[in-house]
Amino acid sequence: MSATFQAGSTPDKGLHPEKLSVGIVGGTGYTGVELIRLLCRHPGVSVDVLTSRTEAGTPVAQMFPSLRGLTNLAFSAGTTDSLAKCDVVFFATPHGVAMKQARELLAHGVKIIDLAADFRLKDTAQFERWYGMPHDCPDLLAESVYGLPEINREAIRGARIIGNPGCYPTTVQLGLLPLLKQQAQSKNPLMQLNQLIVDAKSGVSGAGRKAETGLLFSEASDNFKAYGVKGHRHHPEITQGLNQILGSHKQFEQLVFVPHLVPMIRGMLSTIYVTLTEQGQNVDWQQQFEDYYRDEPFVDVMPWGSLPETRSVRGSNTLRIALQRQESSSVLIVLVVQDNLVKGAAGQAVQNMNLMAGFPESMGLEIVPLLP
Amino acid sequence: MSATFQAGSTPDKGLHPEKLSVGIVGGTGYTGVELIRLLCRHPGVSVDVLTSRTEAGTPVAQMFPSLRGLTNLAFSAGTTDSLAKCDVVFFATPHGVAMKQARELLAHGVKIIDLAADFRLKDTAQFERWYGMPHDCPDLLAESVYGLPEINREAIRGARIIGNPGCYPTTVQLGLLPLLKQQAQSKNPLMQLNQLIVDAKSGVSGAGRKAETGLLFSEASDNFKAYGVKGHRHHPEITQGLNQILGSHKQFEQLVFVPHLVPMIRGMLSTIYVTLTEQGQNVDWQQQFEDYYRDEPFVDVMPWGSLPETRSVRGSNTLRIALQRQESSSVLIVLVVQDNLVKGAAGQAVQNMNLMAGFPESMGLEIVPLLP
Amino acid sequence: MSATFQAGSTPDKGLHPEKLSVGIVGGTGYTGVELIRLLCRHPGVSVDVLTSRTEAGTPVAQMFPSLRGLTNLAFSAGTTDSLAKCDVVFFATPHGVAMKQARELLAHGVKIIDLAADFRLKDTAQFERWYGMPHDCPDLLAESVYGLPEINREAIRGARIIGNPGCYPTTVQLGLLPLLKQQAQSKNPLMQLNQLIVDAKSGVSGAGRKAETGLLFSEASDNFKAYGVKGHRHHPEITQGLNQILGSHKQFEQLVFVPHLVPMIRGMLSTIYVTLTEQGQNVDWQQQFEDYYRDEPFVDVMPWGSLPETRSVRGSNTLRIALQRQESSSVLIVLVVQDNLVKGAAGQAVQNMNLMAGFPESMGLEIVPLLP
Amino acid sequence: MSATFQAGSTPDKGLHPEKLSVGIVGGTGYTGVELIRLLCRHPGVSVDVLTSRTEAGTPVAQMFPSLRGLTNLAFSAGTTDSLAKCDVVFFATPHGVAMKQARELLAHGVKIIDLAADFRLKDTAQFERWYGMPHDCPDLLAESVYGLPEINREAIRGARIIGNPGCYPTTVQLGLLPLLKQQAQSKNPLMQLNQLIVDAKSGVSGAGRKAETGLLFSEASDNFKAYGVKGHRHHPEITQGLNQILGSHKQFEQLVFVPHLVPMIRGMLSTIYVTLTEQGQNVDWQQQFEDYYRDEPFVDVMPWGSLPETRSVRGSNTLRIALQRQESSSVLIVLVVQDNLVKGAAGQAVQNMNLMAGFPESMGLEIVPLLP
Repeated sequence: MSATFQAGSTPDKGLHPEKLSVGIVGGTGYTGVELIRLLCRHPGVSVDVLTSRTEAGTPVAQMFPSLRGLTNLAFSAGTTDSLAKCDVVFFATPHGVAMKQARELLAHGVKIIDLAADFRLKDTAQFERWYGMPHDCPDLLAESVYGLPEINREAIRGARIIGNPGCYPTTVQLGLLPLLKQQAQSKNPLMQLNQLIVDAKSGVSGAGRKAETGLLFSEASDNFKAYGVKGHRHHPEITQGLNQILGSHKQFEQLVFVPHLVPMIRGMLSTIYVTLTEQGQNVDWQQQFEDYYRDEPFVDVMPWGSLPETRSVRGSNTLRIALQRQESSSVLIVLVVQDNLVKGAAGQAVQNMNLMAGFPESMGLEIVPLLP
Repeated sequence: MSATFQAGSTPDKGLHPEKLSVGIVGGTGYTGVELIRLLCRHPGVSVDVLTSRTEAGTPVAQMFPSLRGLTNLAFSAGTTDSLAKCDVVFFATPHGVAMKQARELLAHGVKIIDLAADFRLKDTAQFERWYGMPHDCPDLLAESVYGLPEINREAIRGARIIGNPGCYPTTVQLGLLPLLKQQAQSKNPLMQLNQLIVDAKSGVSGAGRKAETGLLFSEASDNFKAYGVKGHRHHPEITQGLNQILGSHKQFEQLVFVPHLVPMIRGMLSTIYVTLTEQGQNVDWQQQFEDYYRDEPFVDVMPWGSLPETRSVRGSNTLRIALQRQESSSVLIVLVVQDNLVKGAAGQAVQNMNLMAGFPESMGLEIVPLLP
Repeated sequence: MSATFQAGSTPDKGLHPEKLSVGIVGGTGYTGVELIRLLCRHPGVSVDVLTSRTEAGTPVAQMFPSLRGLTNLAFSAGTTDSLAKCDVVFFATPHGVAMKQARELLAHGVKIIDLAADFRLKDTAQFERWYGMPHDCPDLLAESVYGLPEINREAIRGARIIGNPGCYPTTVQLGLLPLLKQQAQSKNPLMQLNQLIVDAKSGVSGAGRKAETGLLFSEASDNFKAYGVKGHRHHPEITQGLNQILGSHKQFEQLVFVPHLVPMIRGMLSTIYVTLTEQGQNVDWQQQFEDYYRDEPFVDVMPWGSLPETRSVRGSNTLRIALQRQESSSVLIVLVVQDNLVKGAAGQAVQNMNLMAGFPESMGLEIVPLLP
Repeated sequence: MSATFQAGSTPDKGLHPEKLSVGIVGGTGYTGVELIRLLCRHPGVSVDVLTSRTEAGTPVAQMFPSLRGLTNLAFSAGTTDSLAKCDVVFFATPHGVAMKQARELLAHGVKIIDLAADFRLKDTAQFERWYGMPHDCPDLLAESVYGLPEINREAIRGARIIGNPGCYPTTVQLGLLPLLKQQAQSKNPLMQLNQLIVDAKSGVSGAGRKAETGLLFSEASDNFKAYGVKGHRHHPEITQGLNQILGSHKQFEQLVFVPHLVPMIRGMLSTIYVTLTEQGQNVDWQQQFEDYYRDEPFVDVMPWGSLPETRSVRGSNTLRIALQRQESSSVLIVLVVQDNLVKGAAGQAVQNMNLMAGFPESMGLEIVPLLP
């Protein structure tokens, strides 16, 4: 399997030479356990290392009884030595961890997929501003690829480092991609770039497995609120992504982004309001979106006027989009749903891994959503 | 008590002459039982008649055990005779019921508060279009008063018929009232009227106590979706209300309104996006809102940048508003929360009744929100 | 594939001769859609017929958008002709439907798995008492096999008709099986048979996809209650099952069974209180249970004193058991969890189908539970 | 008001001489904020001191926006001086705090109501075993009164220190009180004391407002589990309470108690299984319970066979009981519901305060449950 990786001078990768050897740094959070859920049945990989500073020695199935009988993996302290033997290492850690270990692992021929934000924002000043720390390795950041396969598929195949997108940014970029691609090719504007509004809603697992009062059942249940209105870290990531799609016409500077917290475990819905110009109103956007995404394995364009529900993708890597306009309005309403832990995090990371390893892109991700 | 009502030729109102005699038509739904919750402890009223076509004879506490020990009321078939003896009759019925009974009750000197939509839309063509039936009594509709006390307090005091506002329209109108009042007085526009976007979210009780598959626990729990995007009945009510505030400058024609369903029982949050003009950006809206609502008993303007939660008003008649602008954005974000069954329905109806009866406006509504 | 079924005089079974041809009668309920979830990725079967009286013509993915892209199946009216071409037909229907169609389908060589109660209670008088209808085919009932693989595996392999167990009975029988097997072999009593208490709790999906007021989100959420205390249909099924395990010593006559409704979608936990005799207290029950279930693919005996959570089996066919005794108490506490829609219904039905078809027992059921 | 308290040598109590002056130590938890909810509208008291080590200086309405506009109280560090001026001080603190401050406050004539466990278990060895600390003031413990008004009403009126009962113990004691009273007077046993089983279920708020992983929304939602099966602190409190009712015949030594966690915020349901003797089976328990509780303001005996729901008491101080027996069974099933934060904690504490202060027992507690 390692052959796929053109490992060069590191000929003897992996404990299971026939399988891709995988390590997960920080497996005690929700993206970590979700990676394990997806990878423990993935036919092409073997999870060989699973690290946790606090839980070294604990069998993962003891912490997550849902995994009893499925894996004998135990958390380890996670030395560089053990990780260096892997073909791919996922970082399901807090921000700032991956960038500290990246250079050494790369030197051993390990490929890196970071589910935190270390390799998302290309502008180190932006990174420092929003994450409160300087970037450790601007050169690696420059080399890294933003892991949104529907946009960067080819670059991902050849990448050594992937910055796995944030959950909100995934919905907004994929919800606007066909539109912005048209916009980029059009002589005249199709939408008013300074009028874009994203009203986003996420289940509570998006906040991670952190013991914070505000995330308690008795606080978050039977309740609804906006949060992060003053400024959310996904805001600059969204702007960067949209402007990258637009190309030279970087004009998203007034993008409004308001996230809300929904009393459900998984699921994310973004309601995107696009003010179309008169020319934009004459485009058949439904057709555009269907054409654009026809061959994408994980993007589902629903019929015009559909009302996607988050539960329709629960546990799966599918993202669904529906379009609508209200009578006499120039606003195109784009509704996007995904499972924030799958397409919004761990599933997308596995999709990236599949691309990097030369596997079929859907391998291990053919999961039927759990409904009801 | 009836004296307050200038009962005229109907001298012998009420079974409890010292209290306002109240009837509730259709007490088996959520707004009905909420009216009972509020009125069974209201010091100024006596609930004397409670009707239900299907449950005649059943003690209300048998259907709603939460009321055991609090009331001996039983549902009755609800003859006009019994209702005609009341001072005030609330209609907590499906749309179209109140307008059929209104004329006869008025003739007996009964005042009417309709919690359905019969007396909300002033334009009968609009009513017919959105509710699928012709209006029975356009003259009474013309006479009726839209029961939003913060806007129509004086008219409510003298009204015979109240159209109690819809839940969403209450949040949007109160969330924009100080702004539109300013706009109405300003020579130059303060906001772009054709750019207004309302992204609203409601708990499931807003759909009523109807046995529909989509409202089942197993369908609505752990899920989030938009609904009614093609067109929601509260849309024209919102537009009418906002244009009424604006006065002669009726310009809301492109208002976008997208409601969503939140997996919680009670609670509503509307996120309103107002694109300010340059002049509008120079107004101190926080000050404007605080000044405008200073003396309102049920509107709470929170500090700039606050994040109101629906649970902060659970069970109470309070509506909370918070304002915010994101860096470099011309958009004023207005966040409004209320309990959809209280300020959004039954509580507002009692507030209206208090005004009509000459009671203190907060009488019976001094409820501390239930948190957690 | 049909060869496995020794189809005899019905040589031309199935539209996909290489796969088992499957029909589902009544696919619009929760057990129906759960069967589709499990079978649409099952490598050995092809779902060829899916019937619904009310939804004939509707693509199943239109009713359940979670299945978009996974199946092109549409509901059909479900003639006997089309069903007769299947190898196996599942009935995910209300009680009383399967027994009306069974004889004709059997005549065509079709095997039947009924997820309703028609083939659960062997005593037709009991059936009539609890289900309010006479039994249509006592001879087929006598032939049918109760589909609890851990008890009747061999009989299931050769069966033509399976009565798939109720959800509660599955937890109670598997929670007591090793104990009752010991009891049956012991000269002296190990437990007091007239003291058995089962306090059971189920998620709301157990009630099915029925538009009933009591199952509404606004009624069932943030609430807890017992139900069916006067008498639940699973009560006689449990008694029958336990007595069958005990063999000739049928002594469960005072079994107390109290089900409760939990505000969650899926999941079931039964807390079983077994009063041990002095001899019974000296048995190492943990060892007994572990030994008994060592080779069972879907029964997990957790370490002594564990606290199984329903979410640890969400979406999977695993049932977990934990044992405990409180200090100085003679009562053995047996905690059993399962997903009521999988091991408690559709998953167990597929497990039965696998046995009948000669497939590996876990085929298509290797699902990692969805947590969180 | 202080006159009621015969304050003796402390003549100058309270900032509002006409009202009972109240202090709350530890107002940031759920029982604390619930006390504020109940007391800020209580006509007989003035909350004058509210302490929190961590939040001194913060207005309580900033931490709990549900209280905005209802109170100007701010948390203070809570010196003994300020508390000593109160008539009554509630401790809504972790276990072990009240017993450290009790002696000094008593010396100033302050009465104490402890909502933690310091004054619940009369046996100091038991206290030390279950709470992991020695008792600071056994003499005060001996003097203190267990604050269950339905059992100790007269003693509460004259008490200086109240140990407010735990939530589970309240349901079990009140669920069995009429039965044990009969038992205590009967020559022959009416029930088998060594067969008592309590299967109890609580909403998540019962665990307090603690930032623990297991209490997160994403962990506790859509899930059900038993907990504390090895031993729960309320177990000895229940045994003590039941034996006290029984009087000299202390025989509850094998009581089985299994608590479970329900994904709801508030509410508690205990299902109690009482094995009746033949004599006990001939008693009309429904009549016994109704007679016993006829005059109790907060205990509601529902009709035989009723199914009490936790939401029927949401936010109120009422506890509801229903009885049932299954066909041919000797087991009396007692179902008890309460709001764990009201009758199970803060409401009962206010009920105790009312008794101590000579107020009407229901003062400030006449709250209609919030349903839906």
